[in-house]
Amino acid sequence: MDTVGRIERALHAALDLAEGTGSPPRLAEAMRHAVFPQGARVRPRLCLAVAGACGSDDQALPDAAAAAIELLHCASLVHDDLPCFDDAATRRGKPSVHRAFGEPLAVLAGDALIVLAFQAVAQVACAPQRIVPLTLVIARSVGMPAGIVAGQAWECEPKADLREYHRAKTGSLFSAAAVAGAVAAGASPDGWRQLGETLGEAYQVADDLRDAASDEDEIGKPTARDAALGRPSVVAALGIPGTVAHLERLVARAIDAIPPCARADELRALIASEARRLMPRRLARSAA
Amino acid sequence: MDTVGRIERALHAALDLAEGTGSPPRLAEAMRHAVFPQGARVRPRLCLAVAGACGSDDQALPDAAAAAIELLHCASLVHDDLPCFDDAATRRGKPSVHRAFGEPLAVLAGDALIVLAFQAVAQVACAPQRIVPLTLVIARSVGMPAGIVAGQAWECEPKADLREYHRAKTGSLFSAAAVAGAVAAGASPDGWRQLGETLGEAYQVADDLRDAASDEDEIGKPTARDAALGRPSVVAALGIPGTVAHLERLVARAIDAIPPCARADELRALIASEARRLMPRRLARSAA
Repeated sequence: MDTVGRIERALHAALDLAEGTGSPPRLAEAMRHAVFPQGARVRPRLCLAVAGACGSDDQALPDAAAAAIELLHCASLVHDDLPCFDDAATRRGKPSVHRAFGEPLAVLAGDALIVLAFQAVAQVACAPQRIVPLTLVIARSVGMPAGIVAGQAWECEPKADLREYHRAKTGSLFSAAAVAGAVAAGASPDGWRQLGETLGEAYQVADDLRDAASDEDEIGKPTARDAALGRPSVVAALGIPGTVAHLERLVARAIDAIPPCARADELRALIASEARRLMPRRLARSAA
Repeated sequence: MDTVGRIERALHAALDLAEGTGSPPRLAEAMRHAVFPQGARVRPRLCLAVAGACGSDDQALPDAAAAAIELLHCASLVHDDLPCFDDAATRRGKPSVHRAFGEPLAVLAGDALIVLAFQAVAQVACAPQRIVPLTLVIARSVGMPAGIVAGQAWECEPKADLREYHRAKTGSLFSAAAVAGAVAAGASPDGWRQLGETLGEAYQVADDLRDAASDEDEIGKPTARDAALGRPSVVAALGIPGTVAHLERLVARAIDAIPPCARADELRALIASEARRLMPRRLARSAA
């Protein structure tokens, strides 16, 4: 089974855990709405690529780790879209969870997806010596003091450090995806955090660029939100050409940061292909 | 150190984990606002009482489990109080988190407290063979299909089963508190779920009774909310005298459900004292 197939299977298996006897059906539906159909799944693909590069002896724990990372990403999108934050009407080309199911179920779907991430990892029948550190990696990536939730909270602080904000809001989950892949494979986490952080920074820069230089049709969500909401953004600081150059440097730095491992070539190819995919069409055309 | 001292120490230790370098200060403050000063801490006290009754050989994991249970309870209160649910202005006699810090930080504080619960358990330096099943007990108590979040979601379903609703919304965390105490002590979970479920049902009945028959000054939060919001309630179904009789039967059933263990007397005493504490003053006076 290919990587994307493994990720979708692991996500369906996790959602199945949430739908036992007596589960409230609309909440279950809201959770599936948040997770399917697939987004780019870039974080879980990174997780599985690192697990593969580390020579994983088993698929079950890396698959669960990849699913957990994606569930947390989906949870953060559901809560970020709420009226008290971005008030986004659409996500991945369809109504956001609160528009489709109402605000209460959107709050609860995010909560339930966070919990499900931990459950998906803990219920794998394998060495608990791997599960416990994996749980810590995941918890740190999403919670305080420097996970996604902390990143989102910087939007509520009177003084936000742009780098700290991006590192926490996006970098933390990329970093966790890379480290979790190594830990789930029974390998040392050394070196993978740096790779993940650099990729996370590149991804956030690319996201700012797409917000400024794409249209809703291209990326499946409203654009020009950063400027409209006065949010901190790399484009506001560097302009579009400066941001493109910054992104290219980050991608090169990420490729250099891959620790020595058996299958580094596949990781290099994945990173290069992601970088091409994330460039807004009109900039890719003008660069071609 | 007494039980309450251990719980407060474990909660402070957990919150300290959340406040490393670079943490957004207002979110950290909102989390502390949600957790301190103490509420009744009835769930973590149950957890520690069961761990003690099971002959716990170590305090670290039971203390972390008790803290995790209370963090999840606090998280659920923060989210339940949000404008899209109860829109409660006060909690434990002070402003609710969203009134004190705004709605965005209330959403994030709840999220961060959920994550912190898992982190607090996973970071205990002890046998991972206990930590993994404990993580599962905790995850099931708060998530889907039948945890707190599922219980809250029943308020959004067109047809709610009152018993399923109460079992999930309140019973699940009581049940987890009892089972987690046993698992953290390295004992069998057998029998403790039933005790926890019965206590949870009793507690919810007592809560409905206090909502109907107490005033805000007595319980530190607005009363008569169930009737005002048309929420399912035992008092609406049985009336006040019927509810009091139902509560007394549940307490007796809980005491009978204590599995054989070395220190059952302390548990019996705790349950009886809780039952007295939770009875609204005017009913306690009229019964005296």
